[in-house]
Formats: sequence, C-alpha cells, structure tokens
Amino acid sequence: MEPKAFVEIMRPHNCILAGIVGILGSLVAYEGIPPVQKLILIFLVVYFGCSAGNTINDYFDVEIDKINRPNRPIPRGAITRKAAFYYGVLQYFIGLIIALLLGWSAFLFALGAYFLTFVYAWKLKPLPFIGNVTVALLTAATPIYGAVGVGRIDLAGYLAICAFLVNVSREIMKDIEDFEGDKRLGARTLPIMIGKKKSGIIASIFGFLTIISSFLPVKVGIGLGYLPIIIVDIMIAKASIDVLVNPEKAGKGQKILKFATFIAVISFLLGALTREV
Amino acid sequence: MEPKAFVEIMRPHNCILAGIVGILGSLVAYEGIPPVQKLILIFLVVYFGCSAGNTINDYFDVEIDKINRPNRPIPRGAITRKAAFYYGVLQYFIGLIIALLLGWSAFLFALGAYFLTFVYAWKLKPLPFIGNVTVALLTAATPIYGAVGVGRIDLAGYLAICAFLVNVSREIMKDIEDFEGDKRLGARTLPIMIGKKKSGIIASIFGFLTIISSFLPVKVGIGLGYLPIIIVDIMIAKASIDVLVNPEKAGKGQKILKFATFIAVISFLLGALTREV
Repeated sequence: MEPKAFVEIMRPHNCILAGIVGILGSLVAYEGIPPVQKLILIFLVVYFGCSAGNTINDYFDVEIDKINRPNRPIPRGAITRKAAFYYGVLQYFIGLIIALLLGWSAFLFALGAYFLTFVYAWKLKPLPFIGNVTVALLTAATPIYGAVGVGRIDLAGYLAICAFLVNVSREIMKDIEDFEGDKRLGARTLPIMIGKKKSGIIASIFGFLTIISSFLPVKVGIGLGYLPIIIVDIMIAKASIDVLVNPEKAGKGQKILKFATFIAVISFLLGALTREV
Repeated sequence: MEPKAFVEIMRPHNCILAGIVGILGSLVAYEGIPPVQKLILIFLVVYFGCSAGNTINDYFDVEIDKINRPNRPIPRGAITRKAAFYYGVLQYFIGLIIALLLGWSAFLFALGAYFLTFVYAWKLKPLPFIGNVTVALLTAATPIYGAVGVGRIDLAGYLAICAFLVNVSREIMKDIEDFEGDKRLGARTLPIMIGKKKSGIIASIFGFLTIISSFLPVKVGIGLGYLPIIIVDIMIAKASIDVLVNPEKAGKGQKILKFATFIAVISFLLGALTREV
C-alpha cells in the first residue's frame, strides 16, 4: 500500500473547497465574525464528510473504476478495497467526533449528511437524476451546516434532535412488533437481520438518548411551560426499559412513544410561548 | 373509487401532527410570534409532504399490503394504483407551490425533503436501519423547516440554493461528458435515459436558475464585495448557452462551472465581510 494514496483517495482539493463553503455559511449566517475555533471545527466536519464519502465511493465503484479510471488508488492496487472501506468509516468517525464539539445540532446535522453520502455511494448513484440531485443537495447542505454550527437555529435544532432520536427508537420498536409478518414477506428489517433482543437494546438506547436530549432546550432558556416534558421522559423511560427487558413489549412501547410525542409537542409549544426573549 | 379513500390514503392524523411540529419549529426559532400567514403556509408544506409521501408509500407497497394490510385503500380497490401515484405527485406539487410562497430557501428545503420521502418509499424502505434512520431524519427536518420558513438562515439559505442549482447543472454536464464510457458500462445516467440533447436543455435550465438565484442575496443586504458575482454569472451563462446549443460542449461547460464556483465562493465571502449588520 502507498501512504500517498491515502491522501489521494480523499480527493482533498474537492474537500477543502467544501470546507471553505461551510465556513462561508457560518460567516454569512452569523452577525459579526464567529469564533475562529468554531470555523476550524466546521471546516473539519465538512472536510471529513466529503473525504469519507469520496473514499466510500471508490470502495463501491471499484468494478467501474477498473475499466473507467484504472489509475485510482484501489484499481491500481495502492490501497486494498477492504482498507478503503475501514479508512472511510474512520474518517466518518473522526468527523462525527469533531461535530460533537460543535454541539448536538451540529452533530445530528453532520450525521444526517454523512449518512446521505454513504447511501448515495451505495444505492443512489446509479439512479438517473436522483444521483445528481443528491450530490447537489449535499453541496447545498454545506453552507446550511455552517449556519447550524454557529448556533443559528439552536432551539429548533434541539427539537429536531429529540424528534430524530425518539423516531429511530419507535421505528425499530415497530419493526420488532411486525417481526412475524415481515419475516413471512421476506423483509429485511433490523430485527430480522440481528434479532429482536439486540434490536430492543438499540431501540432503548435511542429512547434513553431522547431523554438526555430533552434537557438540551433548558440550556438556551426555554420557558416554564416546558415542564410537562418530565411526564414525557417518564413515559419514554418506561417504554425503553420494557423493551430492553422484553422485546415482545415493543408493540406497546411504540404506542407509548407515540403518545409521549404528542405531549412533547405540547410541552415544546408551551415552553416556546413562555420563553423570555 | 371511493372519495373518502383519498383522504384515508394521506393518513391525515399523522400529517397534521407533522404540520404542528413544523409550526413549533417556527415558534421556537423566531424571536417573538411569527406572522400567522407564514405559520399556515409552513403547516401546509409539511402536511402535503407527509401526505404525498404516505400516498406514494402505498403505491410502492401494494404487493406487501395485499397480504399485510388488505384494508388499505389500494389493496381493497378503493383507489387504483395508478390514481394513487398521480394523486401523490399532485400533492407534492401543491406542497411545492405553497413552499414557493415562503421564499426560495423554504422551497429548496421542501424540495429536498419531498425528494427524500419519494426515495425512501422507492428504494430505502427495505434496507435495515437505513429505512428507520431516514424516517427519523425526515421527522427531524420538520422543525428545522419551520425555522427556515420564517427566514432564520436567509443568506446561508441563498448560498445553499445557488450551490444546489449550479451543482445539478454541473452533474448533468458531467454525465453528458461521460456518455460514451458510461454507456459501455451499462450505467443509467440521465443522458443515457433521455438523450444528450434533452439533458443539455435541463442542465442549462439549472444554469439559468443559478444566475437568477445569484441575485437573491442582494435582497438581504449583502455587501459590495459581492460584485464579482457578475463575472460568475457571465461564465454560467456562457456554459449554459454553449451546452444548450451543442451538448458536446458539456465537458468544457462543467469545467467553466467549476471555476465559476470558486469565484462565487470568494464573492460570497467578500460580500459577507463587507456587509453592514
């Protein structure tokens, strides 16, 4: 393996430009000049999302590149295919850890965009137009990411995070509930792939993460109307523990989460209305 | 066909809740109470994205639903499969027209999210975990959409729009450039599916849309440093007209667009720095 190829497979020029666009997003969204430290973090999160995506692209495209671009690192034998995969995943991880330093909104946004780069390379690339639009959407997400990274939509961002986490939990519980029917139909849901028990553990982890995240809005001064969130958290804790102990309770659990979501929406609404701006 | 089924296939409860979350996003992001008219528009854009997605889901899931949920509108014969498809597309259109009333950022965001609901129903749903995460991401996008709808990230949003449009144009030009190689490899790019000439027309439409959108930042008071954008617009116009007249110029066109993007980034940067806040 050639060490230089590990730089080349990232397509660094491409990623540096993307990183600059991220910084640009912060500059135009922020009133005044944002802290330089934040700008560096934003640059790095965008850089690694881009470089990881490019690396994973080369991993998936190896058969095409053998014919079309035999000089790329994998086809010319400078990096093994497996090494490229792990190297890409490593870059995703580095980027996500850096994103965490920018806060939860920036982390979740990065997770969503990173996820899309992976799905693009894996499934969307060969689709006419859909592939083109996905690339364009990812580019468009870059300046928005810069704005999110400097905290321009904090409370809406926290709401998004809670919505994301509780929905991952509930979707998995629904898949556990539908296990028998889905299996007969040959579906490939998470519980069918890794079992109900492990899926239950993942679903409850996301439940507990929702509870932790539900405290984030307090940081940016949500009003006292937000207090009913305590009831929501108790409901989510109940559903998560139930499913953790016995995955057969997933059906009941997902119904509890649905009802909890209703109350959470009301709490956020009351919290926003009682906020002192 | 039963008229009632056209309401049922939307899963209206589900969409109303999503619409409320959108409004909530605006309320928490906006300082003070946003104009009620905007809140109604935000509610409707979210509602129709959700209902169109649900409708298209039923269109793609008909075989599974025949076994699993024979009482859904399509399997029980209340709506034909084809009617469901067109009905879903109609809802997407209505939603996008309403999104336009909220401004370009809100339109593009809606376009991205709507697009993801379609890709989810079509391709991502059967993938373990990927499907779950997509649903959760769409839910998380809802409050962020509310924030965007009330103009919380305007300049970064305009930058995103220009980046999106120019990239769609450039990606299509690249596909026209790679036509011969891609065809030999059996790829299904846009030019291979609909021809180079038509693809060239689409690429140049996106180019012209970029030029129009490049004037948006002036509305929110970008500084005089933004003036070099005129050079960018001339370059984009040149590339778009070339490709419109002769799609064989796509290779050169996409290189011009790449270079134009560099200058555009610098213009935005200078414009942001020379802005009076």
